[in-house]
Amino acid sequence: MSDKSVTDRRSFLFRAAVTAIAGGTVAACKDAAPKVAAATTLPPAKPALSAAETMDKMHEAGIKAFPAKTAGKGNQLMAPRIEKGVKIFELTAEKFQWETAPGQMVEAWAYNRQVPGPQIRVREGDRVRVILHNKLEQSTAIHFHGLELPNDVDGVPFITQPPVKPGESYTYEFTVPEGNHGSHMYHSHHNAAQQVGSGMLGAFLVEPKNPTEIERADVDYTLILNDGAHGFTFNGKSFPATEPLTAKVGQRLRIRFMNEGMMIHPMHLHGMHMTVFAKDGWILPAPWRCDTLNVAPGERYDVIVKCKSPGTWAFHCHILPHAESEHGMFGMVTAVIVS
Amino acid sequence: MSDKSVTDRRSFLFRAAVTAIAGGTVAACKDAAPKVAAATTLPPAKPALSAAETMDKMHEAGIKAFPAKTAGKGNQLMAPRIEKGVKIFELTAEKFQWETAPGQMVEAWAYNRQVPGPQIRVREGDRVRVILHNKLEQSTAIHFHGLELPNDVDGVPFITQPPVKPGESYTYEFTVPEGNHGSHMYHSHHNAAQQVGSGMLGAFLVEPKNPTEIERADVDYTLILNDGAHGFTFNGKSFPATEPLTAKVGQRLRIRFMNEGMMIHPMHLHGMHMTVFAKDGWILPAPWRCDTLNVAPGERYDVIVKCKSPGTWAFHCHILPHAESEHGMFGMVTAVIVS
Amino acid sequence: MSDKSVTDRRSFLFRAAVTAIAGGTVAACKDAAPKVAAATTLPPAKPALSAAETMDKMHEAGIKAFPAKTAGKGNQLMAPRIEKGVKIFELTAEKFQWETAPGQMVEAWAYNRQVPGPQIRVREGDRVRVILHNKLEQSTAIHFHGLELPNDVDGVPFITQPPVKPGESYTYEFTVPEGNHGSHMYHSHHNAAQQVGSGMLGAFLVEPKNPTEIERADVDYTLILNDGAHGFTFNGKSFPATEPLTAKVGQRLRIRFMNEGMMIHPMHLHGMHMTVFAKDGWILPAPWRCDTLNVAPGERYDVIVKCKSPGTWAFHCHILPHAESEHGMFGMVTAVIVS
Repeated sequence: MSDKSVTDRRSFLFRAAVTAIAGGTVAACKDAAPKVAAATTLPPAKPALSAAETMDKMHEAGIKAFPAKTAGKGNQLMAPRIEKGVKIFELTAEKFQWETAPGQMVEAWAYNRQVPGPQIRVREGDRVRVILHNKLEQSTAIHFHGLELPNDVDGVPFITQPPVKPGESYTYEFTVPEGNHGSHMYHSHHNAAQQVGSGMLGAFLVEPKNPTEIERADVDYTLILNDGAHGFTFNGKSFPATEPLTAKVGQRLRIRFMNEGMMIHPMHLHGMHMTVFAKDGWILPAPWRCDTLNVAPGERYDVIVKCKSPGTWAFHCHILPHAESEHGMFGMVTAVIVS
Repeated sequence: MSDKSVTDRRSFLFRAAVTAIAGGTVAACKDAAPKVAAATTLPPAKPALSAAETMDKMHEAGIKAFPAKTAGKGNQLMAPRIEKGVKIFELTAEKFQWETAPGQMVEAWAYNRQVPGPQIRVREGDRVRVILHNKLEQSTAIHFHGLELPNDVDGVPFITQPPVKPGESYTYEFTVPEGNHGSHMYHSHHNAAQQVGSGMLGAFLVEPKNPTEIERADVDYTLILNDGAHGFTFNGKSFPATEPLTAKVGQRLRIRFMNEGMMIHPMHLHGMHMTVFAKDGWILPAPWRCDTLNVAPGERYDVIVKCKSPGTWAFHCHILPHAESEHGMFGMVTAVIVS
Repeated sequence: MSDKSVTDRRSFLFRAAVTAIAGGTVAACKDAAPKVAAATTLPPAKPALSAAETMDKMHEAGIKAFPAKTAGKGNQLMAPRIEKGVKIFELTAEKFQWETAPGQMVEAWAYNRQVPGPQIRVREGDRVRVILHNKLEQSTAIHFHGLELPNDVDGVPFITQPPVKPGESYTYEFTVPEGNHGSHMYHSHHNAAQQVGSGMLGAFLVEPKNPTEIERADVDYTLILNDGAHGFTFNGKSFPATEPLTAKVGQRLRIRFMNEGMMIHPMHLHGMHMTVFAKDGWILPAPWRCDTLNVAPGERYDVIVKCKSPGTWAFHCHILPHAESEHGMFGMVTAVIVS
């Protein structure tokens, strides 16, 4: 495949993602296709490939590139600074360029130059201090979505606090309530459609003091779904730059789904079922099984996958235009690799 | 803030709501923004505000106005007329102007000059008569969504009854079946995309003869979600004209969610979780907890919130473009106020 | 009603379906309406009907036509050829014309000239061979959605197999795992947004060796929801060409919902509730009741309806623009007829 056609595929994928968001339908992808086909004319010396072969080569190129390297990694576990027993996390909101897939640069507004922001992981009963530094040109604030905190650290400007203006810092300090463990989130709650849509979000995980048997996991993976200004992403990256989830046969894989976007994403895992055991951090009284889990904006689900079967298992949003176009898989696609 | 800019904000909110419905994306809001900014030029005497300050002032104005007064209130409990043991409710369908937020007038087609229509509240086993008067220019009919009635009062023109023509009246009479209690709805089932979208809907609540412990509530609130011709609304109103839900510390707040729109609305409550105990009026065998409850068109969910923490808690749809724009919160936003 | 106006209604329904998919809103339907009204001018000799009468006649015509005859029937149970204890199913993917409602022809890419493809029905533990013949101009592959198979028969080109090129055949052979019974699907996993959207999908049902009491049914019906290039359909047909579900008073009706589209479809049954007992083929530990079941893309739900009440019960998607326009019911509407 020529460099040119690889570039064409990349630029198509980016346009396809943007178009799909604007139009929300396969129709939009179809409209975009002819333009790309026109631009992909091969040099006359080579024998022409059939349309099917041309399509297959683009699909293959995407899959062979997986997992593709890109600059930057989001959702990195953040080690707190500890002072007098308080776990301190500093988050700096700023604007920067972010690579969602090879060569696809988008403008991010996010924390600590990561999309999603750094993963905060504490324990039930911990005393926590989050210091927000605002280097944006807009005011902002942080809401701790799912945590049952006192009202004055709830993060809603003009209701529970003043907005944190450009150049200002603001401190949230609280004790994580007993019983309020599980998979939560933090994100902007000011001009949030734009700010969260641009990347101002992250995972806030609370470990229980006494984990139940169903939570026992060998691999613990947080998967943040998004569909905002950055296209269709998992943890800030689009296929083929998404990260595979890896486990060994016999291991228990915990996946913490979080939707920070504007649309539902029914997540389908091939080859193995998921046992859903928590909703929004709360343990379910009657865990249930599925292979396709519909996650709506703001929701979190925790599941266990018993990795019984070796192989590379596709794992994607089942709204197909979020995951594949005529030019190959893109957006909300990754794999569970069991070895 | 000058009167002019308040007016500008109002007109923006209305346009934003309409644009968001047409386009369904943040992009639509972004497109609209420059026009508004151009119209908000301040008098030369005042020092120019920064973009951040201008934005914050608009956000603040919206929040300070909450709960804003508007003409008309929907979902008002309707006292029946009782004749020979039959509870009689008269519903008149007609066209009128409805104020969804201060200054935002829309054309409503609805019952008894309310959006949503009056709340009907009866008891398991009650004999009920609903008399519909059609003052519209279209035919219509009423379907009692969730009630398990004899086929001839099911309300589907040409299947179970003739359409009720302009100027005509029609009577539905039935006994509410034993066991069929809970949160139901009534709405048009003729040209329904338009008629329900324009306001022809209401709550039909059936109290059980023997309530279970989980249903015990100090405050009982019905919240009808909509996204039709009137924009994004709760009980027919858009923020800041939505009604807050009020309770005292220690009280049990029951919320009956009903979606009469065309889109899902994942409802997020800050600071406290919800225990979901009924779906479509049916008590769940294994109630579960959440902070974000995804409600699809036609669904109802009943939840209990144990109000343990005082404060004003934001309560909104977590599809952020249904709740906030660059010009502040609008649409599907209200608050649970615990004192 | 003149032949001309019936034709107008038909052509409207087709345009309405296409428009609704492109625009996704009631607004789209409103825009379309005036054009149709202009085209429906009646001959001068007849007295003019009022707008309400004209609308009612169109609604009535649609309902009286139900169930309307069309060429072709999808989801037909396929008898396997059995060789040495292996159940063999041959699926030929090709392009053909498909009638979704009277006179509404669409281009289908599908299996064995049916939309959905033939219903495959096997038993837990069965040895199964599926032979795919590709008569399309694109490569393809089949994924057995919900089956927990060895990786090499998972059907994802360039990950688990080569793409099956135009003119080629490909064989999948596997044993249906113990415990993996229930309602599953098969569909293309190559250029799937287009291929599945065009009809390359079908039901793959696995009967349990030891059915539980809750699964016991007198009538067993599979309902595949779709919203792709063919408009809003149930089993490949749009109202009034959808098939009614028929049962007798006292019978247990099992409905297997499957969503092969791009949107949620909250399915509402009038008059009787559904007991949801399986998700994606897995028996739920705590079955729950509803009258409106939200089915997301890729999901399957199995429900039991105890048919206690005689009559023709409307059964439709409760996203009303998927089911009704000013010109009558269309798309995702059928009925449960209890006699």
